[in-house]
Amino acid sequence: MSLLEKINEPAAIKKFTLAELDILAREIRQELVQTVARTGGHLAPNLGVVELTLALHSVFDLPRDKIIWDVGHQCYVHKILTGRRQEMTSLRQFGGLSGFPKRAESPYDAFDTGHSSTSISAALGMALARDLKGEDYQVVAVIGDGALTGGMAFEAMNHAGHLQANLIVVLNDNEMSIAPPVGGLAAYLSRLRTDPMYSRGKEELENLLNRLPHLGPRVLKVIDRLKDSFKYLVVPGMFFEEIGFTYLGPIEGHNIARLKEVLQHARNTRGPVLVHVITTKGKGYQPAEDHPDRFHGIGPFDPATGEPLAGGGPPTYTSVFGAELVRQGEKNNRLVAITAAMPDGTGLTPFARRFPKRFFDVGIAEQHALTLAAGLAAAGMHPVVAIYSTFLQRAIDQVIHDIALMELPVVLAIDRAGLVGEDGETHQGLFDVSLLRCVPGLVLMAPKDEQELRHMLVTALQYQGPAALRYPRGAGMGVPLTGTAQPLPIGKGEVLRRGRDVTILALGPLAYAALEAAGDLAARGIEATVINPRFIKPLDEDLILTWADRTGHLVTVEEHVLAGGFGSAVLELLARNGRKGIRVRCLGVKDEFVHQGKPAILREHLGLTPAGIRAAVQALLAETPVLHRRRNQTKGISGG
Amino acid sequence: MSLLEKINEPAAIKKFTLAELDILAREIRQELVQTVARTGGHLAPNLGVVELTLALHSVFDLPRDKIIWDVGHQCYVHKILTGRRQEMTSLRQFGGLSGFPKRAESPYDAFDTGHSSTSISAALGMALARDLKGEDYQVVAVIGDGALTGGMAFEAMNHAGHLQANLIVVLNDNEMSIAPPVGGLAAYLSRLRTDPMYSRGKEELENLLNRLPHLGPRVLKVIDRLKDSFKYLVVPGMFFEEIGFTYLGPIEGHNIARLKEVLQHARNTRGPVLVHVITTKGKGYQPAEDHPDRFHGIGPFDPATGEPLAGGGPPTYTSVFGAELVRQGEKNNRLVAITAAMPDGTGLTPFARRFPKRFFDVGIAEQHALTLAAGLAAAGMHPVVAIYSTFLQRAIDQVIHDIALMELPVVLAIDRAGLVGEDGETHQGLFDVSLLRCVPGLVLMAPKDEQELRHMLVTALQYQGPAALRYPRGAGMGVPLTGTAQPLPIGKGEVLRRGRDVTILALGPLAYAALEAAGDLAARGIEATVINPRFIKPLDEDLILTWADRTGHLVTVEEHVLAGGFGSAVLELLARNGRKGIRVRCLGVKDEFVHQGKPAILREHLGLTPAGIRAAVQALLAETPVLHRRRNQTKGISGG
Repeated sequence: MSLLEKINEPAAIKKFTLAELDILAREIRQELVQTVARTGGHLAPNLGVVELTLALHSVFDLPRDKIIWDVGHQCYVHKILTGRRQEMTSLRQFGGLSGFPKRAESPYDAFDTGHSSTSISAALGMALARDLKGEDYQVVAVIGDGALTGGMAFEAMNHAGHLQANLIVVLNDNEMSIAPPVGGLAAYLSRLRTDPMYSRGKEELENLLNRLPHLGPRVLKVIDRLKDSFKYLVVPGMFFEEIGFTYLGPIEGHNIARLKEVLQHARNTRGPVLVHVITTKGKGYQPAEDHPDRFHGIGPFDPATGEPLAGGGPPTYTSVFGAELVRQGEKNNRLVAITAAMPDGTGLTPFARRFPKRFFDVGIAEQHALTLAAGLAAAGMHPVVAIYSTFLQRAIDQVIHDIALMELPVVLAIDRAGLVGEDGETHQGLFDVSLLRCVPGLVLMAPKDEQELRHMLVTALQYQGPAALRYPRGAGMGVPLTGTAQPLPIGKGEVLRRGRDVTILALGPLAYAALEAAGDLAARGIEATVINPRFIKPLDEDLILTWADRTGHLVTVEEHVLAGGFGSAVLELLARNGRKGIRVRCLGVKDEFVHQGKPAILREHLGLTPAGIRAAVQALLAETPVLHRRRNQTKGISGG
Repeated sequence: MSLLEKINEPAAIKKFTLAELDILAREIRQELVQTVARTGGHLAPNLGVVELTLALHSVFDLPRDKIIWDVGHQCYVHKILTGRRQEMTSLRQFGGLSGFPKRAESPYDAFDTGHSSTSISAALGMALARDLKGEDYQVVAVIGDGALTGGMAFEAMNHAGHLQANLIVVLNDNEMSIAPPVGGLAAYLSRLRTDPMYSRGKEELENLLNRLPHLGPRVLKVIDRLKDSFKYLVVPGMFFEEIGFTYLGPIEGHNIARLKEVLQHARNTRGPVLVHVITTKGKGYQPAEDHPDRFHGIGPFDPATGEPLAGGGPPTYTSVFGAELVRQGEKNNRLVAITAAMPDGTGLTPFARRFPKRFFDVGIAEQHALTLAAGLAAAGMHPVVAIYSTFLQRAIDQVIHDIALMELPVVLAIDRAGLVGEDGETHQGLFDVSLLRCVPGLVLMAPKDEQELRHMLVTALQYQGPAALRYPRGAGMGVPLTGTAQPLPIGKGEVLRRGRDVTILALGPLAYAALEAAGDLAARGIEATVINPRFIKPLDEDLILTWADRTGHLVTVEEHVLAGGFGSAVLELLARNGRKGIRVRCLGVKDEFVHQGKPAILREHLGLTPAGIRAAVQALLAETPVLHRRRNQTKGISGG
C-alpha cells in the first residue's frame, strides 16, 4: 500500500516524517504523470509545486485556513490531497473534476481561479473579512512569477502593504511563466536568486560596522545613517519591502523541511508576508523538465517518452493565423505583433523568430498590451494583438478608450473564441461579441474556416481603424489554403446556399453545420438559405434584410452567449428597419456559464450542431401555417 | 500687453528668461482661475502643473516630441500654450474645447486620455514605433502619483524597464490624487520626499569607504560587496531602479530652473527615466491650496472667494445612495463599501466616516476593487462597490470571472451611468448595460428616481448573488425620500400609465420623459402605456409580453448605446417568445462616441427627450395602417 493510499484526509500528512513526505512526493509525481498522460492538462506547473503543496498542507489547517491558487492550474496536487484522488481520472472531462479550483467542488477550494493575478486581491478580501468578523485563520495566496507581472497583482500588493493585514503571498518563482519571463521585475527576481548581496543575512554587515575603528564625527554620522538604512542594504526583496511586505526568501522550493520552516515563520509574522520560493517547472519528470513550455498545458501523451498521442488533422486556426501573419509581415514593415505571455498559444512564435524586433511579449498584462498597441498605432505602426477571447475580457476599456476612441488601426486577433473545452468556464470565449459589439466604429469579423481567416486578417490590416477577428481553438475545417490572402469587402456577407423557406445566419465555422442542416432539411422538403455573415459589425444589412423578407424566417447561430450577441445584432437590424412579421430564432448559449468538456460534447449539449439547427428550423416553421409560408415565398423569392 | 499675449507659438517660451517664465506662470494661473470659474473644470490639477508644463515646453520640441498627459485633465496649461488660449472660454462646453487632450483638436495633443494609468503604455508604444521607424524624438508621459497605483502603469513600467527604450516618465507627485493617496507605494513616495537617506548623493558614502583603514581580508570582501551594491544603498528611488528605470529626483516642481535642468538631464539619459517632481495641487490660488479635493473638479465658482455658484436643487443620486448606504450599514454589519479612489464622487464619504473599518479605498485600481469585493464576499461579507460606469469598464473580467462565476453577493453601485456631460466621451456611462447584460446570473437594475434608488439598493443587498444598479450623475427628480427603503420583487417592472396604442419602456429616469411624452401623445389622440422596467436583467417577461401583445407597438428608451443595450434585451425577449408582428423602435445612442456638453443639450441632440419620444411613437404608429391598430386594440386590451 502506497503512502498516498493512506491519506484519508489532508491533515494526515501533518504526522508524516520528512522522509515519508519525500516518498509521498515521488508517489504524487508518478500519479500526476500517469493521470495527465491520459487526460491532458497542466503537467509541468503541478510537478513544480509538489513539495510546496505538501509543505502548505503540513503547516496550515485546511479548510479552516484558506489557500488561493493563482491561475489555478497548479491545483492538482492539492486536489489529490483533499479527497479527490479517485476522481482524478475524470480531470477536465465533461462532468468530471475541474482542472481549476472550484468552491462548488470542495470545501478545500477557497476561491475559483482561472485567469491570472487575481489571488492577492481575493486573499486580501478574505483576510479583511476574517478580521472584521473577529475570526482567526490564515489566508495564503500562491502566485507564479508570471502572474506577478499582471497589474492587478501589484494593485493588490500595494493595497495590502498599506493595510498591513495578516496575509501570506507565496511567490512560486519558476523563472518561467508560460513563456520565458518578461519585464524589469523578472530581472529583479533573477538578481534576487543569484546575487549573494541580495540573499545573505544581515549579521555579516553588522559585524563589519561594529569592527569599524572610531573615525571622525562626520564619518560617524554617515555610519549612523548607514545603520538607519540598514534594511535597504541587507534585506533582500526590498522591492517588496518598499510597498509594505515582509520578504522571506529565496527558498529552495523542493526542500520540504526548509519550506515548512519558512512557512511556519510566515505564519507567525504580523502583516503581509511574501515568501519567495524557487521551484523547477516540470520537476522530476525529465521530458517536462526539458520542455517546461510544451508540458505547461498538454494533451494526452505517452508517459514513457513524453511524446503527444494525438496528431494529424488539419492545421489549427492558430497556426494558419501565425503563418499568414509572417507573410503579411514580409510585405508590411509597419506590422508589429503583440502577445500577453502567450507567444506559442497565439501562434506568434514564427513571427517572433522572423521579426524579433517587431514582436513584443508584454508578460501577463492584457491592459498594457492593448494600450501599447494604441501607442504604436498612434505613432504610425499597425499592431496586431493576438489574444484569447477570455483574456481580452481583461482589456475592454483599453479597446474602447485607447483604441476605438481615436479610431486607431489596431487589429485584435481573437483566438479561442467560442467553446474552448477542457479548461472550462473560466476559459470559454463566449462573451467577446457582446463586449465588442457596443464599441463604436469597431469592425468585427468571424471567419467560417481557416482560409477565410487568412482573408480576414488581410482585411483587418488594410482597414485604417480598429478591427477584430474571432476564431476558434483547435483544428480548422481542412479546406485548402491556396492563393494569396485577399481583402474582403467590409460589411459584406456571403450566401452559401439558397432556399425559399428559411434563412440560416451562422457565425464562423457554424456555417458548415448550417450547410449540413440545410442538406438534411432539403431531404425533408424544407429549402434553407445559408448565409455566412462574415461581419458581426457592420452587418451586411442589405443581404440580411433581403433574405429576411424573402424567406420570412431567420435562424441565427453562434458559439456565444445570446445576450447581446450576433443574433441580438440581427434583431436590432430588423427593428431598426421596421421589419415586423419576420420570425426569428436565435441559437447560442443561454444565460449560463458553460462547464468543461470536449467542444464537440458541449456543442451537442447546446444544440449547436447540424441536428440542433435542423430542429430549430423545423420548430420555427411549425409555428407558421403552411399557407402563410407559401404566400411569403411567392411574394419574395424569384430565382430561388 | 501680457507675456501670454506674446506667445504665438509654443516654442516662443524657449527664449524666455527665468524671470519671464515666472511672470508667465503667474499670468497663466490668473487665466486658469478666471476660465474655470466660468466653465467649471479641473482647476487644482492644472494650478499644480503650471511650472512643470512651462519647463516641458521649454525643454522639448513639440509637436515633434510627444507629451502624453495621463488622465489628461491637467492639460489646460498645455492647451493655453499651444494656440488654444482664445478658445478656453468654450472649455468643456458643447462644441467647444475638450477638457482632455484630443488628437483631433491639435497636433500638440499626442494621445487622447481620460481614464487613469494609460500614459506609460502609450508612451512606450510610441517610443518603440519611433525606434522601429528610425525616427528621433522624445516621448514623455506625465503621470500623477494616484495614477501610478493603477496596475496598468506598473505593467507598462515593468515592460519598459525590460526593453530599455528611451522614454521619460514624469511622476507628478502631489501627495494627493483625487482622494488622499493609498497604498504601500504612496508611503514609499512619501519616504522618498522626506528621508534624507533617500535623497542625498552618493559622494558622501564613497568618501566613507575610501577613508576606511585596511581591515582583515574577510571584512575587505564585505566592503567589496558593499561597493557592488552601492546603488542599492545610495540611489533613491530604488523601487523604480529595480525594475529598470533611472530615477531622478525628487525635484521641487514649482522651480522652473531646476525642472529645466533635470528634464534636460533626463533627455540625455539612455533608457527609461523616471523624473520625480513634487508639486502642490492648487498652487497659487489659496482656496484651491486649502481644499485641493474640492477644487479637483469643480463647477462654476466665484473666483474671489472660491465659493461654488450653483446650488439648491434636489439631492443627487450619489448623495441619496450614500445616505441610504449608511442606513443599511447600521442594520447589517456584513456590509462593506469599496471605492477606487473616488470616496467623494461616489458618495461613500458618509459611510467611510461612520464605518471606517468597513470602508476600503483601494486607490485607482478598479480590477483589484472588484476582486477584493469577491474575496470579502467569499468570506461572508456583503460588499458594495461604488464605481462610475465608465471606470467599471476597467474591471469587466473581474465581474465575470471573480464575482458572477461563483455567484458571490457583491453589489455594484454604478454611478454616472448614462450621459455625464462636460467631461465628454471618455467619461460617458454608455456601455455598462451591454457589458454587463452578457454576464450570466447578474441582476441589473436602473431606478427611475432617487427614491427607487433606495429601494433598489436594498433589493441588491437582500439578493444573495451579484447585483448591479445603474443611476445617473447629478440631481435626482426631486421626489420625496420618505419611509424605509423596501426590497423590490426581482424581475418585476412597473406600469406607470396605461394606454392601448403603444407601450413605452423607458429605462431609469427616462420614465419621466416617457410619461411627459405620453401626456403630449394623449392630447393628440394616441394612448400610450408607460412602463418603468426597473430590471434590465432579468426582464419582466410577462409584463413586457403582455403589453407588447396588447398594444402591438413598443418603443424602448435608454441612455445607453443601442448595440446590446436594454432595447436589444427586449428584442431578444420577443424573439425568444416567438413574437412576430410587434413593431418595435429602440431609442438610445447610435454607434458613436458622445462628445461633451451639458446632459440636457446632449439628450436633445440624441432625441432622448419627451419630444423625441413622442416623435418616435408617432413615426412608429404612422407606419401601421389605422385599421390594423384598431384591430389590435380590440383584440388585446380590455381595461385600458
